[in-house]
Amino acid sequence: MKKLEMTEAIMAAKARSGLGWEAIAAEVGLAPVFLTSACLGMNSLKPEFADKLCEVLNLPAEVSTALQAFPHKRWDQAIPTDPVIYRWYEIVGVYGETIKELIHEKFGDGIMSAIDFSMDIDKEENPAGDRVVVTMNGKFLPYKSW
Amino acid sequence: MKKLEMTEAIMAAKARSGLGWEAIAAEVGLAPVFLTSACLGMNSLKPEFADKLCEVLNLPAEVSTALQAFPHKRWDQAIPTDPVIYRWYEIVGVYGETIKELIHEKFGDGIMSAIDFSMDIDKEENPAGDRVVVTMNGKFLPYKSW
Amino acid sequence: MKKLEMTEAIMAAKARSGLGWEAIAAEVGLAPVFLTSACLGMNSLKPEFADKLCEVLNLPAEVSTALQAFPHKRWDQAIPTDPVIYRWYEIVGVYGETIKELIHEKFGDGIMSAIDFSMDIDKEENPAGDRVVVTMNGKFLPYKSW
Amino acid sequence: MKKLEMTEAIMAAKARSGLGWEAIAAEVGLAPVFLTSACLGMNSLKPEFADKLCEVLNLPAEVSTALQAFPHKRWDQAIPTDPVIYRWYEIVGVYGETIKELIHEKFGDGIMSAIDFSMDIDKEENPAGDRVVVTMNGKFLPYKSW
Amino acid sequence: MKKLEMTEAIMAAKARSGLGWEAIAAEVGLAPVFLTSACLGMNSLKPEFADKLCEVLNLPAEVSTALQAFPHKRWDQAIPTDPVIYRWYEIVGVYGETIKELIHEKFGDGIMSAIDFSMDIDKEENPAGDRVVVTMNGKFLPYKSW
Amino acid sequence: MKKLEMTEAIMAAKARSGLGWEAIAAEVGLAPVFLTSACLGMNSLKPEFADKLCEVLNLPAEVSTALQAFPHKRWDQAIPTDPVIYRWYEIVGVYGETIKELIHEKFGDGIMSAIDFSMDIDKEENPAGDRVVVTMNGKFLPYKSW
Amino acid sequence: MKKLEMTEAIMAAKARSGLGWEAIAAEVGLAPVFLTSACLGMNSLKPEFADKLCEVLNLPAEVSTALQAFPHKRWDQAIPTDPVIYRWYEIVGVYGETIKELIHEKFGDGIMSAIDFSMDIDKEENPAGDRVVVTMNGKFLPYKSW
Amino acid sequence: MKKLEMTEAIMAAKARSGLGWEAIAAEVGLAPVFLTSACLGMNSLKPEFADKLCEVLNLPAEVSTALQAFPHKRWDQAIPTDPVIYRWYEIVGVYGETIKELIHEKFGDGIMSAIDFSMDIDKEENPAGDRVVVTMNGKFLPYKSW
Amino acid sequence: MKKLEMTEAIMAAKARSGLGWEAIAAEVGLAPVFLTSACLGMNSLKPEFADKLCEVLNLPAEVSTALQAFPHKRWDQAIPTDPVIYRWYEIVGVYGETIKELIHEKFGDGIMSAIDFSMDIDKEENPAGDRVVVTMNGKFLPYKSW
Amino acid sequence: MKKLEMTEAIMAAKARSGLGWEAIAAEVGLAPVFLTSACLGMNSLKPEFADKLCEVLNLPAEVSTALQAFPHKRWDQAIPTDPVIYRWYEIVGVYGETIKELIHEKFGDGIMSAIDFSMDIDKEENPAGDRVVVTMNGKFLPYKSW
Repeated sequence: MKKLEMTEAIMAAKARSGLGWEAIAAEVGLAPVFLTSACLGMNSLKPEFADKLCEVLNLPAEVSTALQAFPHKRWDQAIPTDPVIYRWYEIVGVYGETIKELIHEKFGDGIMSAIDFSMDIDKEENPAGDRVVVTMNGKFLPYKSW
Repeated sequence: MKKLEMTEAIMAAKARSGLGWEAIAAEVGLAPVFLTSACLGMNSLKPEFADKLCEVLNLPAEVSTALQAFPHKRWDQAIPTDPVIYRWYEIVGVYGETIKELIHEKFGDGIMSAIDFSMDIDKEENPAGDRVVVTMNGKFLPYKSW
Repeated sequence: MKKLEMTEAIMAAKARSGLGWEAIAAEVGLAPVFLTSACLGMNSLKPEFADKLCEVLNLPAEVSTALQAFPHKRWDQAIPTDPVIYRWYEIVGVYGETIKELIHEKFGDGIMSAIDFSMDIDKEENPAGDRVVVTMNGKFLPYKSW
Repeated sequence: MKKLEMTEAIMAAKARSGLGWEAIAAEVGLAPVFLTSACLGMNSLKPEFADKLCEVLNLPAEVSTALQAFPHKRWDQAIPTDPVIYRWYEIVGVYGETIKELIHEKFGDGIMSAIDFSMDIDKEENPAGDRVVVTMNGKFLPYKSW
Repeated sequence: MKKLEMTEAIMAAKARSGLGWEAIAAEVGLAPVFLTSACLGMNSLKPEFADKLCEVLNLPAEVSTALQAFPHKRWDQAIPTDPVIYRWYEIVGVYGETIKELIHEKFGDGIMSAIDFSMDIDKEENPAGDRVVVTMNGKFLPYKSW
Repeated sequence: MKKLEMTEAIMAAKARSGLGWEAIAAEVGLAPVFLTSACLGMNSLKPEFADKLCEVLNLPAEVSTALQAFPHKRWDQAIPTDPVIYRWYEIVGVYGETIKELIHEKFGDGIMSAIDFSMDIDKEENPAGDRVVVTMNGKFLPYKSW
Repeated sequence: MKKLEMTEAIMAAKARSGLGWEAIAAEVGLAPVFLTSACLGMNSLKPEFADKLCEVLNLPAEVSTALQAFPHKRWDQAIPTDPVIYRWYEIVGVYGETIKELIHEKFGDGIMSAIDFSMDIDKEENPAGDRVVVTMNGKFLPYKSW
Repeated sequence: MKKLEMTEAIMAAKARSGLGWEAIAAEVGLAPVFLTSACLGMNSLKPEFADKLCEVLNLPAEVSTALQAFPHKRWDQAIPTDPVIYRWYEIVGVYGETIKELIHEKFGDGIMSAIDFSMDIDKEENPAGDRVVVTMNGKFLPYKSW
Repeated sequence: MKKLEMTEAIMAAKARSGLGWEAIAAEVGLAPVFLTSACLGMNSLKPEFADKLCEVLNLPAEVSTALQAFPHKRWDQAIPTDPVIYRWYEIVGVYGETIKELIHEKFGDGIMSAIDFSMDIDKEENPAGDRVVVTMNGKFLPYKSW
Repeated sequence: MKKLEMTEAIMAAKARSGLGWEAIAAEVGLAPVFLTSACLGMNSLKPEFADKLCEVLNLPAEVSTALQAFPHKRWDQAIPTDPVIYRWYEIVGVYGETIKELIHEKFGDGIMSAIDFSMDIDKEENPAGDRVVVTMNGKFLPYKSW
C-alpha cells in the first residue's frame, strides 16, 4: 500500500468515524499537527502509534505498515496556490530576512531545525474575530567550524 | 531616500550604537520582529515610532520619512537558498496541507491572515541545545459567501 | 466524490436542464459569480445552498456533500494561456502598481482582501459593441503594527 | 528622458506639491487610474493632458514628451510578491474559469478587452471596515470567424 | 464529448476520407486556417459550419456539438520545441520590438488584435525552393484614454 | 560602439530628423521591417546600406560599423509582456499546431525558414477600424533524409 | 497507431531480431542516426524506407504508416538530465558563442541549418580509451536582407 | 583583470590586427575552436600559448595572466535565443535520445566526455549552398561498477 | 519489463526477504551504494551481478534483463524537496565554489568525474549523536587542450 | 565592507602571497574546505581565526570584521553550469534516492545534517589518473515525533 492510498483510506475512515484530527490525536497520544502530517504522508509513525491509529479508525494492518514507512516528502508547487498555504509562503518571503536577523542576534550563526521541530495550532477566541495561534519550536543548530 | 539606503543607514547606525534589535525595539515600543521587518524595508512605521527609532539611533529625519513610506514587499528568490530561510520554506512545503486541514477543522472555510498578523521569536534554553520558539498570531478570515 | 467529478456532474446536469448560471444562481439564492466558482470547485457552499442546487439540477446528495467540502484552490498555469483569462493577468501586470498607489492613497498601508470579497459581472449594451462590466468589492485590511 | 526618470520626476514633484493622485487627475481632466498608470509609465498621454500635468506639477517640457511616448509595458515578476498585487493575481487564479464561463454565457465566444478598457477604484465606508470597490469596463470582442 | 476526443474523431474521419484541410474548408465554406484551428480545438464553429463539417466527413452529431463548444485555449510549452512552431516563436522574439515600432508609427498607441483576426497560408512556387506565404489581418485597437 | 549604443544614437537622430521608419527605409532602399530590425540591433546591414542610413540620419561612421556587426539575437522575456508583442506570442500558441498541419499538407515534412524570410506590415483603412496587415514570406525547408 | 506505440513495437522487434541499429540501417539503406531518430519518433521516413524497415523487422503495415507520419518533435526537459545527453547540452553552453564566432568568420551572417542537416557517429579505437567521433554537416543559411 | 575585460581587450586587438580566428590560431599553434573558446573566457590556456597570443595581438602581460586563469563556465540562458546557437540546442533535443542509443550500442553503458574533447568547424564548398562541417571527438567514459 | 516495474519487483522481494541493502550487496559482491542505485534504476548491472541478485531475492530472469538495460537517468525535481536529498543540494550550493577552488588548486583545470566514480556511506557511532560518513572517489579529468 | 569586497581583497592578497588554500588553512588552524568557504563568503569565522587569516595575508582589520559577519548563503543558478559544480549536482540527481534509502536503512527516519557537517577534499595519486577523494561527515538528525 502506497502512502497515497493510505491517506485515502484514512480520510474515508475518518469521515465514517465522525472524529476530528484533534480527537483522533488525543486517542493516539500524539500532537494533532504531527499525527495529521503522518496521515497525509509527510511523516512516519512509530509502530505503537500506527497500530493505535488503525485501532481507533478501524483500519487494516497494511495501513499501519504504510504509516511506518519512511516518507518521500514531495510537493509539486514551488509557490503554493491555495490561499491558506500561500499566506504562509508570503510570511516566509516578507519575514524571512527578519527571522534570520533575530535568530543570529539571539543564538549566533546557525539555523532553526525543521527536523528536531514541533508545531501546534490553536484557536484564540476573540470578539473581533477568532485568531489562529501557531507555536513552532525548533532546535537551534550552530554551524560547525572545522 | 529609498528603502534600500534607509536599511543601510540603519544597519550602520545600529552597528555604531552597539544595540541589538531587541533593545532598540524595547526603546521604540514595538515588538522586535515588527521593528526589524520595518528596518529591513518590509513594513512601514507610524510617524511616532519612526521618529523614535531615529532618535534612538541618532539618524536624520529622512530615515524617518523612508520608514513611513509604504513598502513594496519584494523578494527575488521564489525558493530561498539561505538555510535559515529555506528551513521555513520547507516547513511550509511539509506542513502546508496539515495546516490547511487543521485550520478548516477548527475554524471552517477560510484562511489565517498574513496582514492582521503578529510574530514573536524567543529563545528557550535547553541543556540538550537551545531552542527557537516562534509564536504567530493571525486573524481567521472566513471566505465570504455572496 | 471528488470536486472534479462534482464539476462534471453539475456541467452535465446543467446542459440537460438548459438553464444558465444566472438562472440557476437566482433559484439557489446566490450571486452568479460565487455559485459558478463553487460549481467549478473553487469555493464551498453552505449546506442549504448546496442542497438547493442539487434540487434545481436534480442531482444526488453526494454532489451536495462535495459542494460543501473545503476546496484546494489550485491552478496549474502560473501565466494563463486562454485569452479571456490572460487579459485579466495582463490587467494585473499593467495596473498592479497603479492599484497599489491608489489603495495606499485612499486607505493607507494595507491590502484589498481576496477572501472577504465579492464580484459581479454584468453586460452593458452599447451600439459600438457591448461591454463587460465587472464590480469587485473587497474589504480593506490594514497591516497590523505590533 | 526615459519613462523611469519621468516617473521619478513626477513622484518628486507630487511629493513637493502635497497633492494626491485624485486631485491631480481632477485638475488634468482624466480618471485617477488612467492618469496614475501613465505617470508610472504604463500608458501614454495625449499632448494636452501631458502638458496639463506638467503645468499642475510644475515640471519641464521633457516630462511631457516622455508622457506622450509609447510605453513598453513590462513587468518582471510573473507572479507578483507584493500582497496588494498578489491578491489580484490570486483572484485571477481562483475566479479565472468562472469569469470565462460567465462571459461566454452572457456574450458568446470572445473576450473582455484589456485595451478598450477602463477601471475605477473607490472607497466604500463601512463600520465593519471600509471596502475597496473596483469597477472595470471592457469592450466585449467576439472571436472572428473567417 | 471533449475537444480532445473530437479532434481524434475528426482526424480519423479525415484520413478515411482522403481529403485535405483545404478541400474540407472549401466544402464547409470557411478559410482553411480557421477551420483547421477549430478542428484542433482552438476555436469554436457556428452551428451551420459545424453541421456541414460533420456532413462532409460523415461524423455524428456529438462532434458538431463539441465543435460549437467554447474552447479553452491552452498550450503546455511556454517555448515550443517542434521546429515548425519554434521558428514562429523565434520570429516573435527577433521581430517583436520592430513590429511594435512600426505599428505605433503607422497607427499610434495600440495593438493588433489577435481576436478580430484572420490568417491565410499560401504556397508560392519558386525554382529556388517553394516559399510559405502567410497573411495576417488584425484590427488595430487603440488604447482607450479615460 | 555596441549595438545598444548604436540603437540609442539612431533613435535620437531619427527624432531630430522628424523622419519615420518608412521614409528612412525608402531612402536607404530596404524594406521598413528589415531596416527597423537592424536599427534595433536584431539584424546586420550590408556596408552600402549602413553607410546610406548614416548619411540620411547624419550619423558618424562608427554607427555604420556597428550596423554591419553580426548581432547576437537575444530577448529576455520567454513570454513577452507588452500587449503588442504578447498578442503575437498568443497567435503562435493558438495557431501553432494549425500552421504545422497546413504547412505539412501543402509542402510535406519540413519548416518555414525564419532566416530566408521577409515580413511586411501594412495598414488597411477600414471604416469599422483600420487593420494591420502582415505578410510573411519564408522559404520552405524540407527535412533532409540521409 | 501513435508514434509512441510505433517506437515500442520497433524496440520489441529489434530485441527479438538481435540486430543493432547499424545493421538495420544498412539493410534499409539509410544512415544509422537518421534511421534511429525516425524509429524514436523524431523524423519521418519516406514510404520505401518505412516499408523496408517493417520487412527487415517483420512488423505490420501500420508501423510503416506511423513511420511516415509527420512527427511532432517534442522534448520535456529543457535541460536534459541523462549524462549522455547533458554533456551535449553542456557543449552547446560552453562552445555556443565560439561556434557563432567561427561560423560568422567563415561564412558571414547566417546559421548552420538543423533541417538540411546530417550526423554520423563513429568509434575511433584508441589504446588510451576509445573515442566517440561525431560529424555533423549542415547547410549554411545566410540571413536574407530585404 | 577579469575574463570579461580580457575578452574585450582581445576583441579590440583582433579588430585592429585585421586577423581572423583561424589565422591567429595558426600562429599560436592551437585549433581555432579551442583558441576562440579560451579568448571568450570558456577555457584556460597554458602559459606558452597565452604568451604567444599576446605577442601576436600585441597585448600586455595581464591578458596572458587572465587567459591562464581557471574559468567559471557560466551561461545565462538555459535555452539560447540566438538562432545560430539555438539550432544546436534543437539538435540536442531532437537527436539526444538517438545519440544515447547509438553510443550505448557501439560502446556500452557510458558517455562521450565533454572534457577530454575536441571540436573542429570546417567549410565545405557546395554549389547548392556551402555547408558547415563540424567534427567532435570525445573520449568514451564507461560507467564504473564498484 | 521497464525499470520502474523492475524496481517495484525488487522492493517487494526485498521486503519479503527481510534483507537490507548492505546484506544483499555483500551477497552479490558489489558496494551497497552501487547496487542500490542499480535497483532504483539509475545504473545498469553486468550480467553476473544481475543474475546473482535475482538468485538472492528469488526473482525471475526478466528482472535480471531489466537490471542490465542501459538506464535513462532522469529526475523530475530540478530542486529536490525531500529533506534528505535537499541537504545534499544545499551542500552543492554552499560549497560548490569552494570545491572548484580546491580541485583547481590541487589538480589544475579539470573536473572530478561523476562517471568514473564511487561512493560509500558509513555510520560513525558517536555518543553526541551518530554521524553519516560519506566517501566519494572520482577520477580527475583535465580539460583537453587542442 | 561587504562579503563580496572581502572575497576580492582576500583573493588579491592570496595571489600576492603566493600561498595556496591548504597552506593558508594550515597556518590559520582550520580545514581547507571550511576556510575557503568562509573566504568565498559562505561561512563566518570566529574572531581568532579571522584575525589570524588577516595576519597571514597581511590584510586590514575590516576584512576580519567581514569574515565574522553572518553570511547570507545565496546562489543564483538553481542548476549550476560550471562542469566542476554540475557534476556534483548530477551526483545528487543520480544518487539522491539511493542515499535516502541507505541513510534510512542504517539510521532510521531522519537526515544527514548540512549544518553540523564537515568536508575534506584529498588527492589520491594513481598511475591511471589521479583521483579526487571527498569525505563528508554530517550528524544524523532523527525526525522528532511529538
